[in-house]
Amino acid sequence: MNSDSQQLLSTLHDCAAACNHCFDACLQEEDVKMMAECIRLDRECADFCSYLEQAIMRNSPFIKQLAALCAEICEACADECGKHDHEHCQHCAKACKACAEACRQFA
Amino acid sequence: MNSDSQQLLSTLHDCAAACNHCFDACLQEEDVKMMAECIRLDRECADFCSYLEQAIMRNSPFIKQLAALCAEICEACADECGKHDHEHCQHCAKACKACAEACRQFA
Amino acid sequence: MNSDSQQLLSTLHDCAAACNHCFDACLQEEDVKMMAECIRLDRECADFCSYLEQAIMRNSPFIKQLAALCAEICEACADECGKHDHEHCQHCAKACKACAEACRQFA
Amino acid sequence: MNSDSQQLLSTLHDCAAACNHCFDACLQEEDVKMMAECIRLDRECADFCSYLEQAIMRNSPFIKQLAALCAEICEACADECGKHDHEHCQHCAKACKACAEACRQFA
Repeated sequence: MNSDSQQLLSTLHDCAAACNHCFDACLQEEDVKMMAECIRLDRECADFCSYLEQAIMRNSPFIKQLAALCAEICEACADECGKHDHEHCQHCAKACKACAEACRQFA
Repeated sequence: MNSDSQQLLSTLHDCAAACNHCFDACLQEEDVKMMAECIRLDRECADFCSYLEQAIMRNSPFIKQLAALCAEICEACADECGKHDHEHCQHCAKACKACAEACRQFA
Repeated sequence: MNSDSQQLLSTLHDCAAACNHCFDACLQEEDVKMMAECIRLDRECADFCSYLEQAIMRNSPFIKQLAALCAEICEACADECGKHDHEHCQHCAKACKACAEACRQFA
Repeated sequence: MNSDSQQLLSTLHDCAAACNHCFDACLQEEDVKMMAECIRLDRECADFCSYLEQAIMRNSPFIKQLAALCAEICEACADECGKHDHEHCQHCAKACKACAEACRQFA
């Protein structure tokens, strides 16, 4: 695996971790209703980042296209998380923005 | 694939569909907070049923053990969904209970 | 879920089943080396079809984009499987072609 | 997340990477037929390790049971990979053995 792929793997892993943590934390917030779209997008983003990680690891012929779509999903999750002041949302927004940028460059 | 596996595949598919629908519908309810554990378990159950479906399809050597664990996860989701009166929760509880039973017999 | 989504779910399910069965059967063939690309693409296609199934079930905001990429992956798997005379490859090629077409129309 | 979970996440990640790399490398070997069981178990093990990673990240209520089953799957993959002299198989066997041990302790 080249160093571009190695770098992307690590960014995807951080993003999946941040999204899954945000999913869990949002479900424990007082005002869960306000977090509904965040919960939904956290799952979308975590699942796709995790999917792309595995695709890179197995040398899939489709990683460029997957990365392009991953950038779009990360961007949407970053936008939603960025609206909320919770520390887990702000952390997640940052991780998603970094991952969107890394995916776009890779694609 | 034998008819036991075919039957289980169909039950798993219905359960994953019911859980994912319940996940989506819970996020759109008025009182999302009350549905937090339901949302969490819907994802757990949908993801594992979907995983087991693929494992059966590819003739995995671990389907008995996966089915035993799937039964436990379906049971937990059925118990939580069963507490709520929403039609999607009641439907999901029924699908999860049927799937738990099918998984236990298969395992 | 509307009837377009219901229809696509069923086509994706058939395609994932055909790909996973072909994956398993290729690994049991006499000349596995000749089937290497088929094995690789069967996994790619089964995994992505299964991913898209779940995304549709949970009302993901990204199903159009996922379906567009799924069409491309199904097409590649259909092309490779179509080269081999094994019954499981020919069956898989047909399922992948049908799924590529369904995904393209949906996207 | 506590440090036990953090440690396990890292071990699972290494194991999934080793299994997916071995899957890819086995498909490019001269004698693919000899590697058929290795290819099959690499996929089983990579998929389950990746599943468990996500489950830990989202604070799933089922991580102990998942880890117990993961140990069994890693062990089976380690046994098969250990039979082959290819560097990717030996590396994978080591990663799987370490992961089996980590999962067992966690469970």
